[in-house]
Amino acid sequence: MVSNQISFLKSLQQKKHRKEHGFFLVEGLKSVTDFMHSDFYTIDTIYHTPLSESKMLKVSGKIKLQNVSEAELKKISSLSTPQEVIALVEIPKQATLQLQQLRGKFTLVLDGVQDPGNLGTIIRTADWFGISQIICSEDTVDVYNPKVVQASMGSLSRIMVDYSNLLLLLPKIKQQVFGAMLNGESIYQTDFGNEGLILLGNEGNGIRPEIQQFISKKITIPQLGKAESLNVAIAAAVFCNEISRNRLK
Amino acid sequence: MVSNQISFLKSLQQKKHRKEHGFFLVEGLKSVTDFMHSDFYTIDTIYHTPLSESKMLKVSGKIKLQNVSEAELKKISSLSTPQEVIALVEIPKQATLQLQQLRGKFTLVLDGVQDPGNLGTIIRTADWFGISQIICSEDTVDVYNPKVVQASMGSLSRIMVDYSNLLLLLPKIKQQVFGAMLNGESIYQTDFGNEGLILLGNEGNGIRPEIQQFISKKITIPQLGKAESLNVAIAAAVFCNEISRNRLK
Repeated sequence: MVSNQISFLKSLQQKKHRKEHGFFLVEGLKSVTDFMHSDFYTIDTIYHTPLSESKMLKVSGKIKLQNVSEAELKKISSLSTPQEVIALVEIPKQATLQLQQLRGKFTLVLDGVQDPGNLGTIIRTADWFGISQIICSEDTVDVYNPKVVQASMGSLSRIMVDYSNLLLLLPKIKQQVFGAMLNGESIYQTDFGNEGLILLGNEGNGIRPEIQQFISKKITIPQLGKAESLNVAIAAAVFCNEISRNRLK
Repeated sequence: MVSNQISFLKSLQQKKHRKEHGFFLVEGLKSVTDFMHSDFYTIDTIYHTPLSESKMLKVSGKIKLQNVSEAELKKISSLSTPQEVIALVEIPKQATLQLQQLRGKFTLVLDGVQDPGNLGTIIRTADWFGISQIICSEDTVDVYNPKVVQASMGSLSRIMVDYSNLLLLLPKIKQQVFGAMLNGESIYQTDFGNEGLILLGNEGNGIRPEIQQFISKKITIPQLGKAESLNVAIAAAVFCNEISRNRLK
């Protein structure tokens, strides 16, 4: 592997280089396999060690394969203990979300989530509970950040994640907007119906006041103990779970 | 601040030094304040910058206060952006958990949770939902690991966390043991009653087979999408939420 190829791949750990080149990296055999079967993503190249060559047999002919040494893999990887396979994946051209795509389903809307582990975990959780789309405010952490990709555990390959100016988008929405707040109706009393947006805010500051005006129902997860707040990925999970419970009733 | 004091405080980032000295660090004004009001913990010293001196007015006379420079604080801190206050806190002598403490309440039991962020988030989540005690298997990540303390956001000051050999403890338990598994009864159908243990496993491997034999009811969070599994902190939250919902009915 030539050294400028290594620097190129390594540079993709930073958002500006991902944006410039239109690629990001996916690490680990399980996640790479998920991306191979994705409806949204195209893998350009899979870099693998000689040891994992046998596992590459089922890879479609359109995907380039490149043997790399463990030392090279370690240089490209964002992990302290690199996995044996890394894929170079194209960032899809962002399709503008069509409003009719919100019909008849639930969509998570994130207003300024900053921690990549939280965003990755939210994607994984949505995928578990069958919620297939997430809209992020423009200042939400980049979904192709290596820590987001890692924490999503392959679920990013199946979930549509869209970035949007919420101040322009939310006024056009016909569905109910359920806002996760510290004060509101108990989530255990909420009738979510069959469609809607679940709005969750930034880790420290919650949902911006100018966004709160678009909430049709403020919902609270009742606090029985003394913690001041819940982690945003945990709150997202509780909302997904309630919707799931409602759907299975 | 003398340099061997700095090395001592810095050394507490490692478990063996915490064990040797019997102390750990808590960072940030909010968390330190929580520990000041804790029933379980005693603060030895609070290190603060001159800037935050005014905030130290309400500190009890038993706690030593020490002015440190920002540069010194940065050396002690485990965070890339250190907060203005760090407390040196005594590790309490571990009281053996009494079996009667399990009566009439719910207790989380963790079998080999490895990620410090997960353990911290589980502590914070339990504190939100009013679940006040957690039992960890001996190979669970150390609760005084700086990343656990950080992710718990002060909740560690209020939650009893006990380490125990689960193979010896679980046979003595009279309460039901609800095991979070990928196959089992739907959590939406489960009657948790008024007391019990919620058993959750390791991130990659789940609950060890030799521990599974003590489960009285295997419980599943129904999967509507395609993610292979849920993060353990997310699963813990869904269980806490269901118990909470049941309690508030």
